Amino acid sequence: MNRILVGQIGCGTVGSGVVEILARNRRLIASRTGCDIEMKRIAVRSFADPRYVEVPEEMLTERAEEVLEDPDIDIVVEVMGGVEPARSFVERALLNGKHVATANKALMSTHGGELLELADSRGLVLAFEASVGGGIPILHPLKEGLAGNRVSQVLGIVNGTTNYILTRMSEEGLSFQEALRQAQELGYAEADPAADVEGKDAAAKLAILASIAFNVRVHLDDVFTEGISRLTPADIHFARELGYVIKLLAIAKQEEDGISVRVHPTMLPYDHPLASVRDVFNAVFVSGDAVGDLMFYGRGAGSLPAASAVVGDVIYAARTILTRGRGLGCTCFDHRPIKDMGETLTRYYMLFDVPDRPGVLASIAGVFAGHGVSIKSVIQHGTGQEARIVLITHTVREEDIRACLAELEGLPAVNRVSSVIRVEDSRGDD
Amino acid sequence: MNRILVGQIGCGTVGSGVVEILARNRRLIASRTGCDIEMKRIAVRSFADPRYVEVPEEMLTERAEEVLEDPDIDIVVEVMGGVEPARSFVERALLNGKHVATANKALMSTHGGELLELADSRGLVLAFEASVGGGIPILHPLKEGLAGNRVSQVLGIVNGTTNYILTRMSEEGLSFQEALRQAQELGYAEADPAADVEGKDAAAKLAILASIAFNVRVHLDDVFTEGISRLTPADIHFARELGYVIKLLAIAKQEEDGISVRVHPTMLPYDHPLASVRDVFNAVFVSGDAVGDLMFYGRGAGSLPAASAVVGDVIYAARTILTRGRGLGCTCFDHRPIKDMGETLTRYYMLFDVPDRPGVLASIAGVFAGHGVSIKSVIQHGTGQEARIVLITHTVREEDIRACLAELEGLPAVNRVSSVIRVEDSRGDD
Repeated sequence: MNRILVGQIGCGTVGSGVVEILARNRRLIASRTGCDIEMKRIAVRSFADPRYVEVPEEMLTERAEEVLEDPDIDIVVEVMGGVEPARSFVERALLNGKHVATANKALMSTHGGELLELADSRGLVLAFEASVGGGIPILHPLKEGLAGNRVSQVLGIVNGTTNYILTRMSEEGLSFQEALRQAQELGYAEADPAADVEGKDAAAKLAILASIAFNVRVHLDDVFTEGISRLTPADIHFARELGYVIKLLAIAKQEEDGISVRVHPTMLPYDHPLASVRDVFNAVFVSGDAVGDLMFYGRGAGSLPAASAVVGDVIYAARTILTRGRGLGCTCFDHRPIKDMGETLTRYYMLFDVPDRPGVLASIAGVFAGHGVSIKSVIQHGTGQEARIVLITHTVREEDIRACLAELEGLPAVNRVSSVIRVEDSRGDD
Repeated sequence: MNRILVGQIGCGTVGSGVVEILARNRRLIASRTGCDIEMKRIAVRSFADPRYVEVPEEMLTERAEEVLEDPDIDIVVEVMGGVEPARSFVERALLNGKHVATANKALMSTHGGELLELADSRGLVLAFEASVGGGIPILHPLKEGLAGNRVSQVLGIVNGTTNYILTRMSEEGLSFQEALRQAQELGYAEADPAADVEGKDAAAKLAILASIAFNVRVHLDDVFTEGISRLTPADIHFARELGYVIKLLAIAKQEEDGISVRVHPTMLPYDHPLASVRDVFNAVFVSGDAVGDLMFYGRGAGSLPAASAVVGDVIYAARTILTRGRGLGCTCFDHRPIKDMGETLTRYYMLFDVPDRPGVLASIAGVFAGHGVSIKSVIQHGTGQEARIVLITHTVREEDIRACLAELEGLPAVNRVSSVIRVEDSRGDD
C-alpha cells in the first residue's frame, strides 16, 4: 500500500484533533483512500507547552524547517494560526513541492489569492475547508458540487461564541455582559473576546466565503464589520414582538452594481432556516440560480470538528497525489467592485427614546420623508419617561439612513437613538 | 480553451434543467473549470414528447447509440430513470470510455456496486449526486470532506412529497387523503403516488446514503420500508402533545452487531434540527465521530435543483479529464451484516382503543412486562367509547414489540391497536 507522510505546524486545539483523528481512524482512512496516511513530524513553538493529545517525543520539533524541508513529507498541515510566520511557512511548503491543508482564516482572508496562485502554478493542493464553519463542508461544495450555479447570496452564522451569547440573551433575557461572562465560564469565549464579539473572526470567514461564491477576490479589509456588544435586552424584546430573532450575520450579496460584504447584528424572520441555529452551532445559507436555497449546519468550532475538515483536506491532497491530479487553484477570475457600506441596500429597525408629547411621530416621520426613506411600520410604546418609538423601514440605502440619523440626533422630538439594527427580510417590499 | 462535449439520455424534468443550466451559465462554468462544456446530443424516447426547454432539433435523436457510440462525447448524462435500459446504457457508456453523471436512484441502489467497479477499472468518473436529496450536495461531502470520520448514523428527510403531506397534516390538521389530494393538485405528488407514499423512493436514496457512509454495499431490497398512508390526525395530535413531530425518516445506523437501514414514519423531538424541515424541503442529518452532528438542507426535487447536482457532477468529470485524474470508484470495501428489522433497537409510540373499565392499564402493562419491554410513559385519555391509551416504550427490540402486539390483539383489555409509530429519541434512556 502507498504511504503518504504528513508534517504539521502547530499542535494546539485544532492540531491535537488532527493528530487524534489520523491515529484513531488510520485503518478506515487507509481503506477509503487506498493509502496509509501517517503523521511524521510536528513543529511546535516550545516542547514545554501543554499538549492536548499524546504525541511521541521523537515526532516533535521546535524547528518548522524540519517539517518544511523534509523531502519525505508530502503534505503540510498548517494549524498555528495568525498571518506571520504562517504565511512564510505555507509559501515555503508550496515552493518545496508540498501540498498544504490549513485551518487559517486570518491567512486565507488576507493572502489567499497569492498563495493559491503559487499552489496552482505548481499543480499543488492548497485546501482550507477548516477556515470557515469548522467541521461543516462548505468551501468544497461551493467550488465543486455547486459550480454550475450563479450564487446570489451567502448568509452565515459563522461565529459560535457570538451565537451562544445571542442565544442566551434571546432565550433567558440576559444582558450582553451576563451572557458573555457565561460564555467565558464555559470556555466558549476567550478572556479577550474582542475578535469574536466585534465580528472580526466572522469577517475573515466571510471574505473567504464571498471570494469562492462570487469568484471575486474579497480581502478581510473589504468587509464592513459591526459587533454585538451594544445590543440590549430591549432590542431582543422588540425583535421578538416583530417576529424576528437577532443573529450576528455574515452577509455576502451579488448586486447589480457590485458585491456587498458585511458582518453585523441582523434581525431575521423567525421562520428563516438560520433563525433556529442555536448556541455554538454554525450554519451557512446559500442561494443559487439553479439549486435555490441550501443550508449547511454543524459545529463551527472545537478541536475534533475543525480537525475533521483538516483531515478531509489531507485526504483530498492524498487522493490528488495518488491520481496524479492537481489542485483547483484560485477561482477568483472575476473583477467586480465591492460596494461601499453607504451604498448597501437593506431594511432598518430603529428604537428611539422620545418625549411623551403630541407631534413626535409626525416630526420623526418628516425627517425620513425628507431623505426619501420609506417607512414600513412605526409603533409608539409606553408613556412618560418610558416613551419609545419602534420603527422599521422598507429597503433603503444605508447612506440615506445615516443622513436621517444625523438629522434626528438634533431633533427635539428625539431624546436618544437607542438602537439601529439592520433587518434581513424582503417580504412585502415593493 | 479546451472543449468538452456532453451527451445526454433523457430530456424530462431533470434533463431539461441540465440543458438549461449548461446553456445559461456556460461562460461562468467555462471560467470556473477552464474548459467549454457543451451539450452535443440528446437521446429522447420520442421526438413527439413535449419538451420543457428549447432544444435545437439537430441536437435530438431517438437512438441512444448516437450518444453512447459518438467518439467525440466525453461525458454522458443519464437522466431517463428506471433500471433498464438505463443500466445497459450506463454500462455501454463506461465500456466506451465515457465518464457518466446520473440522477438515477433506482439504478444506483440496485446496480451501483457493479457499475462503480466497472468505472473504477477504467479510471472513469461515475457520479450520482442528484440521486439523493436533489440539489443538496451530500454524497460528495460524505465521500470526500467527511472521509476522516467514522459515521455512526445518517437520518434523512429525502422525499419531498411525503414531507409536504406530513407538513399539511401537522399544521392544518388535514387527513392523509386530503393532504395527498392537495399535493397532487400542486404537482408535488404523482397521479399514482405509491412510490413516494409507501417509502420506496426514500428507501432507494437511503441504500445509496448508507453504502457511502458506512462503506458497505446496501441494496434497495435490504431497506425495511413502511409508508405514511396509515397515519391519522390523532397520531399527529398525540405526537405534538408528547413534544414530537412525525416525519417519514430514512434511518441508517451503524450498530455493534450490524447496520440498520429503514424508512418509516418516525416521531422526532421538536427541537431536533430535522423537525423544522417543512413542505417539500429535504435534509440529511449526519453524525460522525470527529465532526459531531451536521445537517444539509435544501430542495430535494424539481428540475433545476436536481439538475444543479447533475451539472456539478459533469463539472467534476470535466475537471478529472482536464487534470488527467481518475474517478473515486466504489468505496464499499467493508462487509458488515445488515440487521433484520426484528433485531432493530428503537422506541415505540402506541395508541390503543380500550374499554372504559378498571384494570385495563394493568392488563396491558402486564403484557409488556412479560416480554421484557420497558415502558417509559403510559397515559389514558377520554372515557366511554373514546377511551384510549397512549404508551411510549424505552429503547427495545422490534421483535419484542411484535410479540407484545400479537398478544395484545387477543386481549379483552384492548379493542384495537390504532397505531404503532417508532420514536427517534434516546433522551432519558438508561
